Amino acid sequence: LDNLTTNAALLTPFAPDDTIHHEAIRAMVEYSVGLGNKAFYVCGTTGEGFQMTVAERRAVVETVCEANAGRCKIFVNISHMDFRESCVLADHARDVGADMLSALPPIFNAITTEDLLKYLEGLMDHVSLPFAYYHIPLLSGKALGFDAFKRLSKHPRFKGIKYTSEDTHLLGRLKQLQGGRLPVWSGRDAYFLSNLSMGADGGVGSSFQLIGDLFGAVDEAYRAGDVERARGLQMGINEVHGGFGRYGALQSYKASFELMGIPAGQCRKPFGALPPEADAHLRQNLERLEDIRNQYNIKLPQGSSVAVGLRGAV
Amino acid sequence: LDNLTTNAALLTPFAPDDTIHHEAIRAMVEYSVGLGNKAFYVCGTTGEGFQMTVAERRAVVETVCEANAGRCKIFVNISHMDFRESCVLADHARDVGADMLSALPPIFNAITTEDLLKYLEGLMDHVSLPFAYYHIPLLSGKALGFDAFKRLSKHPRFKGIKYTSEDTHLLGRLKQLQGGRLPVWSGRDAYFLSNLSMGADGGVGSSFQLIGDLFGAVDEAYRAGDVERARGLQMGINEVHGGFGRYGALQSYKASFELMGIPAGQCRKPFGALPPEADAHLRQNLERLEDIRNQYNIKLPQGSSVAVGLRGAV
Amino acid sequence: LDNLTTNAALLTPFAPDDTIHHEAIRAMVEYSVGLGNKAFYVCGTTGEGFQMTVAERRAVVETVCEANAGRCKIFVNISHMDFRESCVLADHARDVGADMLSALPPIFNAITTEDLLKYLEGLMDHVSLPFAYYHIPLLSGKALGFDAFKRLSKHPRFKGIKYTSEDTHLLGRLKQLQGGRLPVWSGRDAYFLSNLSMGADGGVGSSFQLIGDLFGAVDEAYRAGDVERARGLQMGINEVHGGFGRYGALQSYKASFELMGIPAGQCRKPFGALPPEADAHLRQNLERLEDIRNQYNIKLPQGSSVAVGLRGAV
Amino acid sequence: LDNLTTNAALLTPFAPDDTIHHEAIRAMVEYSVGLGNKAFYVCGTTGEGFQMTVAERRAVVETVCEANAGRCKIFVNISHMDFRESCVLADHARDVGADMLSALPPIFNAITTEDLLKYLEGLMDHVSLPFAYYHIPLLSGKALGFDAFKRLSKHPRFKGIKYTSEDTHLLGRLKQLQGGRLPVWSGRDAYFLSNLSMGADGGVGSSFQLIGDLFGAVDEAYRAGDVERARGLQMGINEVHGGFGRYGALQSYKASFELMGIPAGQCRKPFGALPPEADAHLRQNLERLEDIRNQYNIKLPQGSSVAVGLRGAV
Repeated sequence: LDNLTTNAALLTPFAPDDTIHHEAIRAMVEYSVGLGNKAFYVCGTTGEGFQMTVAERRAVVETVCEANAGRCKIFVNISHMDFRESCVLADHARDVGADMLSALPPIFNAITTEDLLKYLEGLMDHVSLPFAYYHIPLLSGKALGFDAFKRLSKHPRFKGIKYTSEDTHLLGRLKQLQGGRLPVWSGRDAYFLSNLSMGADGGVGSSFQLIGDLFGAVDEAYRAGDVERARGLQMGINEVHGGFGRYGALQSYKASFELMGIPAGQCRKPFGALPPEADAHLRQNLERLEDIRNQYNIKLPQGSSVAVGLRGAV
Repeated sequence: LDNLTTNAALLTPFAPDDTIHHEAIRAMVEYSVGLGNKAFYVCGTTGEGFQMTVAERRAVVETVCEANAGRCKIFVNISHMDFRESCVLADHARDVGADMLSALPPIFNAITTEDLLKYLEGLMDHVSLPFAYYHIPLLSGKALGFDAFKRLSKHPRFKGIKYTSEDTHLLGRLKQLQGGRLPVWSGRDAYFLSNLSMGADGGVGSSFQLIGDLFGAVDEAYRAGDVERARGLQMGINEVHGGFGRYGALQSYKASFELMGIPAGQCRKPFGALPPEADAHLRQNLERLEDIRNQYNIKLPQGSSVAVGLRGAV
Repeated sequence: LDNLTTNAALLTPFAPDDTIHHEAIRAMVEYSVGLGNKAFYVCGTTGEGFQMTVAERRAVVETVCEANAGRCKIFVNISHMDFRESCVLADHARDVGADMLSALPPIFNAITTEDLLKYLEGLMDHVSLPFAYYHIPLLSGKALGFDAFKRLSKHPRFKGIKYTSEDTHLLGRLKQLQGGRLPVWSGRDAYFLSNLSMGADGGVGSSFQLIGDLFGAVDEAYRAGDVERARGLQMGINEVHGGFGRYGALQSYKASFELMGIPAGQCRKPFGALPPEADAHLRQNLERLEDIRNQYNIKLPQGSSVAVGLRGAV
Repeated sequence: LDNLTTNAALLTPFAPDDTIHHEAIRAMVEYSVGLGNKAFYVCGTTGEGFQMTVAERRAVVETVCEANAGRCKIFVNISHMDFRESCVLADHARDVGADMLSALPPIFNAITTEDLLKYLEGLMDHVSLPFAYYHIPLLSGKALGFDAFKRLSKHPRFKGIKYTSEDTHLLGRLKQLQGGRLPVWSGRDAYFLSNLSMGADGGVGSSFQLIGDLFGAVDEAYRAGDVERARGLQMGINEVHGGFGRYGALQSYKASFELMGIPAGQCRKPFGALPPEADAHLRQNLERLEDIRNQYNIKLPQGSSVAVGLRGAV
């Protein structure tokens, strides 16, 4: 699990009849691979995993694994409010060839830190794949501190953190765990570079499936010491990222894929439909994206037919 | 749905093999009826509904309806992260004779207020029973304001609010909706009296299943103008309520039922086991409860065999 | 210091040249006495004490004491970011006949609870008058818990709490300190009744200088057991109170006094001027106030010439 | 005001009789200059400016200007709860040769964003020196957003932001104001490098007066593209910075100066005294600081007698 610098949190596309759109998944996987991403994070917040049945989640994981065909690593989010279902999802992920499991802390219920840690340890006891904790205090309401992470880091399955936070001070400390070898991936896309600066190994985020190439360029420039280029690229990312977020992020990612010819469909409730004015805005946003790629001389790989679709669409 | 002053949010008892303990449900229902409660709130936060399968939730609702035999009203919490399952739960609740449905706002996902309102309106469009919104901003992270409630109050199914908040100013305003006839029940047990003072119609809470008689006495004293007695009783409630909360509320309610002879069992994850010292503490707490009942001359009803069990146990 | 049920946090009126308007202070004192208030809280948040020099604050206290002529009790807020100035203000207040001192916790600086408590204890060691702590966590950022209050309550000068919070559960516990004899006054005017219901001895607030009679009527009805009248009055208060708050509370109180013939002037920076549309709104609000008084048969005392002015003005 | 990369927020040393210790100020200025700092931020939060009289603040500014003798730039914090005093402090700072003024937003009072902006604009209208806004939402409770900063940036006196926040996304956007030429200095020392990565021009912080050389080395390494060295140094800083913060930051900076032979004295209330165990801890912390300097081959300048004192002391 080394060198996983840019990793795409995958959307789950739904067909007009609200079933999983497996063809669209395959197209998205292809598009993400084409952008140079190194791993997929499946059925997470971005993937609307909480709004799907266990059977649906299993089906999505299977399709991603099959379409990926070993090219990228596969992270499967096994979060479920019912612990038993998390175990079912974990076993299934292992059986179909996933590389890593991941879970949020238990959401909603007010619990003690001790119960939270025991929950995670219980989950790691059950699983046989490496486990990456999904730290997202703003949404989960659970903000583990350094000592809690230190305790978790002693579990033999604890192998990474999806760090959806902008607290770079804590990130720096977490990078010292497990002898400095614990991977920590930035989960807040607009803070990717500042997280890199304090030691993040890369990032896992929803915009990587659309602009993973830009994050890769940030990472490359940064590690090569070209900090001005890295910052310029991150500023470009933030502009486009803000554009996706203006009318609702998940809905806008899906609508952008639609503009590029991939039938990503609508989000499930509670995410509502985009307003009519979003369409023109998202077209502009994709054009701006192309400008940034041109400005920084970033080329989408040849043979990426969807990428061609994108350039045709806008 | 008038005069529902004291309403018990029911625990879900689990057997040692982690299945639903239907006998224990029946005993709890009996105990709650004996305390004078007027309704049951089933499979809510207290009932660990989020940690159960849909099949389990349906089974619990059926047992409660059957054991209740029409004596109390039945509220069914249909909250589920998957909207489709909420609809399944709603239809089932109607079919088995429930009186009212209830749901939280969508939890966890970051959504706009507009999407939140459309979600609730979509849910109310689907259901055919009256609907009570479960306002619990501290846990759900969604704090609707007056204008949002005003919009919801115009939906023909919107028939109540479980108001788990101590903001009595907003409560007073909400009580003016629907011509002053919208029921608003206090959902924070330690704030029952202050919520009453600004117009709450009563309360729905987890401690009602153990001490609903005390809340009934607060309500009675308050409406009769004996504000000193009302306050004294609420102070007594708060003392005992704090005692239940000391080592984890849900676990302590269950352990207290065990002390009274009802096999409530353990909570599911993420709620951990009580520490060994909790047992003696909870015995003391139940003794203190008896003292308060004696002090205020509150008698448990005759023939409430579990109540006898309680007095025998401590 | 018993029976201080309704207590006015006094505005400080400024003349057009931004100096203290002593005549206006006298008129305000007279108006407040006429409403039946029992005490004045001078140079607090409402009184813009932090935006005045120590010399100005002393001058205001002197004028209030002189105009009051022993009819009401005088609380002096001695909060100052410089501890030494608080001591100067405390000594002066004692010398000119104030009855009680009050202070916020140290604001702005990030300090430990231990340092906060030592600060307050050091202040109480210095003063010779009774001291009331000004609990206002929303603005001060310092939310003392029960144990901290318990420690403070052991200091011989600790004689009350201005409780600007809606947490009625904590309020109930605080009322048990000092053998149940520690006065706790509600400082959030819209939560006056719910604070009363859990034991508040009355209230100290900015709107009392304009509508102290209504709060007195709430208190009277509540203690007489007429809880419906109490609630109706509090709802009326909340309506008018919300009206004052719409365009900025302090500025609106002053503008309302201007409408009633008392030259309260403008607020100092950082409080800006009211927008032009505020004038008509505030006239309507005062008319609504008169309606509520009529509805509940509350008569302003005879000989209160300003009250006549009010009725003439609107 | 270019190239102000490392800038020391100065402590104000107090003599045993609680008066300003002007000799110690001179020694601190000398020490800071020796560390390579480029500017001083005087009478800020670190300098306990809010706990001093206007006369004391003027005296401190005069001594700093005189001791500095033109070597560094001088920023004067003119924040005062009384706007008129801020103007007095501004005029004085200009008269004695300061280079820049700075102020927090109005603290404590609940005001609208509009009033806040008008306040700052009014202050900038008054002053004739360049003005740097002190953004510190965690303590001030006022978190201006991008649009508010954009409006402020149009004022001819608005010439910088002391950005005491870890929100690097907003920082990046702020750096685009005024054609990309608006200086933004990191004010959170543990986030210096991540703020640099998104465009900060350097930093202004309390630990710069003790370890400004390390921040300078971070800045130098970062701009030279040696991102690993930059991160290693920042990790070292964070370790020592955390050591200063363990028992209270301001008190520990002063105690550390005392260990190095500069009589920094005690903090004023509300800051309490350090516990006895702090002394050994702070000695260790200074030793650790020396280790880090050695590890990264950072040499304190020759002739810096205090630095010699430091090495002698530990």
